[in-house]
Amino acid sequence: MAKARNILFIMYDQLRRDYLSCYGHPHLETPHMDRLASMGMRFDRAYIQSPVCGSSRMSTYTGRYVHSHGATWNGIPLKVGEMTMGDHLRKAGMECYLVGKTHMVPDREGMARLGLSPESIIGARVSECGFDVVERDDGVNPDGPDGRYDSKAAEHYNAYLRSRGYDSDNPWHDYANSAIGEQDDVLSGWFLKNAAHPANIEEQDSETPYFTRRAMEFLETADQPWCCHLSYIKPHWPYIVPEPYASMYGAQHVLPQVATQDEFDNAHPVLKTMMKGVIGSSFSRPEVRNAVIPAYMGLIKQADDQLGVLLDWMERSGRIEDTMIVLTSDHGDFLGDHWLGEKMFFHDVSTRVPLIVYDPSPAADATRGTVCDALIEAIDLAPTFVEVAGAEVPDHILEGHSLCPILHGEAQELARSYVICEVDFSGAPFGDALKADMRSSMGFMIANTKWKMVHFEDGNPPVLFDLENDPDELVDLGGDPDYADVLDEMYDQLADWARRPSQRTTVSKKGLAEMRVKTRRLGVTIGAWDEADYPDEFTAKYRGIKARPFQQIVKERGDRQS
Amino acid sequence: MAKARNILFIMYDQLRRDYLSCYGHPHLETPHMDRLASMGMRFDRAYIQSPVCGSSRMSTYTGRYVHSHGATWNGIPLKVGEMTMGDHLRKAGMECYLVGKTHMVPDREGMARLGLSPESIIGARVSECGFDVVERDDGVNPDGPDGRYDSKAAEHYNAYLRSRGYDSDNPWHDYANSAIGEQDDVLSGWFLKNAAHPANIEEQDSETPYFTRRAMEFLETADQPWCCHLSYIKPHWPYIVPEPYASMYGAQHVLPQVATQDEFDNAHPVLKTMMKGVIGSSFSRPEVRNAVIPAYMGLIKQADDQLGVLLDWMERSGRIEDTMIVLTSDHGDFLGDHWLGEKMFFHDVSTRVPLIVYDPSPAADATRGTVCDALIEAIDLAPTFVEVAGAEVPDHILEGHSLCPILHGEAQELARSYVICEVDFSGAPFGDALKADMRSSMGFMIANTKWKMVHFEDGNPPVLFDLENDPDELVDLGGDPDYADVLDEMYDQLADWARRPSQRTTVSKKGLAEMRVKTRRLGVTIGAWDEADYPDEFTAKYRGIKARPFQQIVKERGDRQS
Repeated sequence: MAKARNILFIMYDQLRRDYLSCYGHPHLETPHMDRLASMGMRFDRAYIQSPVCGSSRMSTYTGRYVHSHGATWNGIPLKVGEMTMGDHLRKAGMECYLVGKTHMVPDREGMARLGLSPESIIGARVSECGFDVVERDDGVNPDGPDGRYDSKAAEHYNAYLRSRGYDSDNPWHDYANSAIGEQDDVLSGWFLKNAAHPANIEEQDSETPYFTRRAMEFLETADQPWCCHLSYIKPHWPYIVPEPYASMYGAQHVLPQVATQDEFDNAHPVLKTMMKGVIGSSFSRPEVRNAVIPAYMGLIKQADDQLGVLLDWMERSGRIEDTMIVLTSDHGDFLGDHWLGEKMFFHDVSTRVPLIVYDPSPAADATRGTVCDALIEAIDLAPTFVEVAGAEVPDHILEGHSLCPILHGEAQELARSYVICEVDFSGAPFGDALKADMRSSMGFMIANTKWKMVHFEDGNPPVLFDLENDPDELVDLGGDPDYADVLDEMYDQLADWARRPSQRTTVSKKGLAEMRVKTRRLGVTIGAWDEADYPDEFTAKYRGIKARPFQQIVKERGDRQS
Repeated sequence: MAKARNILFIMYDQLRRDYLSCYGHPHLETPHMDRLASMGMRFDRAYIQSPVCGSSRMSTYTGRYVHSHGATWNGIPLKVGEMTMGDHLRKAGMECYLVGKTHMVPDREGMARLGLSPESIIGARVSECGFDVVERDDGVNPDGPDGRYDSKAAEHYNAYLRSRGYDSDNPWHDYANSAIGEQDDVLSGWFLKNAAHPANIEEQDSETPYFTRRAMEFLETADQPWCCHLSYIKPHWPYIVPEPYASMYGAQHVLPQVATQDEFDNAHPVLKTMMKGVIGSSFSRPEVRNAVIPAYMGLIKQADDQLGVLLDWMERSGRIEDTMIVLTSDHGDFLGDHWLGEKMFFHDVSTRVPLIVYDPSPAADATRGTVCDALIEAIDLAPTFVEVAGAEVPDHILEGHSLCPILHGEAQELARSYVICEVDFSGAPFGDALKADMRSSMGFMIANTKWKMVHFEDGNPPVLFDLENDPDELVDLGGDPDYADVLDEMYDQLADWARRPSQRTTVSKKGLAEMRVKTRRLGVTIGAWDEADYPDEFTAKYRGIKARPFQQIVKERGDRQS
């Protein structure tokens, strides 16, 4: 094994941590993910920075909190000027490619203001979150009365499907993400009732195998060193999977819903609104869970099989010897737990994600197959990658910490006493249900290994979970006066975090230290009464100079003019 | 009078609020500033956002807190992508010009990353804080063993002086900011002992009259509507002024030092370090104050006379009829009060600045000559200007509030319960003395009309002043347990402020509200079990579609290939 030269950064979408067998799922076997864990290190307390695709990814790709980069919801453009892992890696001599999803929306207004054309190389990268795009596909291609949510999603994939004979305006929907019924009716994957049916597509043409092949094709010829972000669309909804995966799991494999009546009855107002909404209500029904969860499991099983294909290719090509492999997810899925569906809140099932890192370098031999339970954030990946690329981590920009010391057995944890996760419903459909303004619909989670607190800006008390004694997060202690001290401490830490200098990104810490001495040596000698107050050399240029009395200058000027 | 069409935005540097006669100075008469106050409105509680030139100005020019724009100290570049008042005003159809100082350092690295050349129009504006430069002059041109602090400062002014016969490599220093002694020795203005001497320059050639003329010359021909930032260098140090101003004031006009022994003995560690440094020690000595303060007063008197010249021109040219005139300062000056010199801490003498706004429009007639004691921040100017320019205030970017409702008598105060001011010594010479790391050398002031609290990140208790009962800020109550409740409330407010969504700048609040409904109408129908869960039209595109069984497609494909 050699030091990692490349990075294969695999992200699944909405892959819930406890649905991998190495993270403890009792029915779903994920032998290839488990194999990667045995080759590398499995992180057990890895948290994403926002429980929604776009914001979570913007944090992972920028290495910065949502509060720092500002893309607080899907569809909110990442402001021009924000650096991404691609920017940092290319600076370190490593190319950075995308195969799949980013959910990034470019700041077109900001780009126009700075005269950046999306057609230029720089503009294209700014438009694509810093990646050089092999194939971008955000994977979700809805179609409503006002048109398509994202006309470019699935563009290439749809062309591929049509070339394979799936004739349709949107075969992504009509074949890959729908079943087929009697009289050849499309049974749309948008309706959860159809999740139990097999997708009407040959398995090898479905999204996960397609993107696996796209990545391998590209990497066969890519110049090293590279970072390739293979960003799968699944097991994100539409929850529907082709055979043989559609038939692998049934109601008997569906784990009991983790929820109590008390949890519903006494829910925090934000949670209560979510529970009562269409998503929460839907996923709380047994028939929905029994239809959806087996399909979700099938999608994960397919993803695992495709990881096997990929790992085989890595071995055949030799890339397994010189490539770091990272496997993670952008967030989890409630699947009815806590009376919720989707993600968008802060329970572990949503915010704590699988994270497996395989580092081929001999330095990582000591930790292979081990589990790390330190507090990790998704923003730690960017600095990890920069370190792998051989550059100094720009810790005035990146807010995470490199995992390399942990991977190499040199540290047990990072310099971190809490993790942060944020949500902002200001632009979300749910913001309407909340009847919240553009400030009060924001929420912050702060958690350590013992406590998790959720503060909403709506004036209500926070949510508090005792993670040690209530790992399922069923009892909200936020209103219990016995925990006032805990809340005070969590609030102090949240305030401390919120005050961090997240925008002081144009000078490194080393540069700041240099500035401290520089100005005096450039003649800024403030407060000097006379020569004695500063070292001689600092004021040398202010001494021993001659001039002429200005009256003489004025007179000569007058003489010249007259 | 007509509605304001143009804006003359006058900023002095280091002009202390209580050194204007309309703000109560007992000896220094500033009739022209007072006249402007009688024509417009005088704001009595206007606070800057950082007690140091560069950071204060970056807040004023961006309309955003230092914590938001990140230029936390002089010399820290304003990151590419930050919008300035020039960007907002030009978008509204108003040109925006600079005559004088900004203390802005461009983010050259960020510009290069985005391919922005300083030679392009866009690049030039990004390099110059959004202004179109008539003449940039940061006014301070120190010279030390490692060279000049800012080789471009005073470049044009020096050329002017040389053309006027002041032969020297740096006439800014050798004439405009120095006196002359026996044997024609230059008595440098860098040494405070020389402040009592007259500057060796003809008064009309000194900086304040020079920049007044530069502004008038430019505005004579400028296309309207314009915003012109006339940004004077004075009364900032070097403290030295030509005759007749040099002889106008003497020790008898120097106000007593506002300081107590207890203040010194029991100072907060950060303050104690400042008091004991060269600046604090120097300005605490009577001989220094008696030399410096009369010169400082002379510089202000000269500024006032030049304002008279400018106002006369405004009347002659008719611009007084259609131009808003704003007069303010980037911060004050301790002048020995509280055992401190310069600015760089949070007492009112440093952070509370003069602010006078004259609005020619009839709507402002009701408030002419009145005083407003609402809490105002320097970041309120940018939104005020945008409103004058006729555009909607982009309140997802600008963090201040337009003063127009107050100016027009429609409101008594802004939607604000506290003001914020920040300092960051990480890159300051003083950071070395503090022995602080790049986080703990940061400080935050939060104040309302009753209390002012200063939190430093160094682990020490905060500073607390009772502004009502101790307006001179002599007694620090921060360590007094009786004020724990006050501190708790101030800390809660500071935390609330720190959590604000300052980087969510790419979508307006209106845009966020639109997003709430948009996604559903673009087909995102999450959680639908069946057609009944959403309005019919939302799922219309997912119903009534036909497809073919994929097996048939696969078979045909096989048939074609064989």
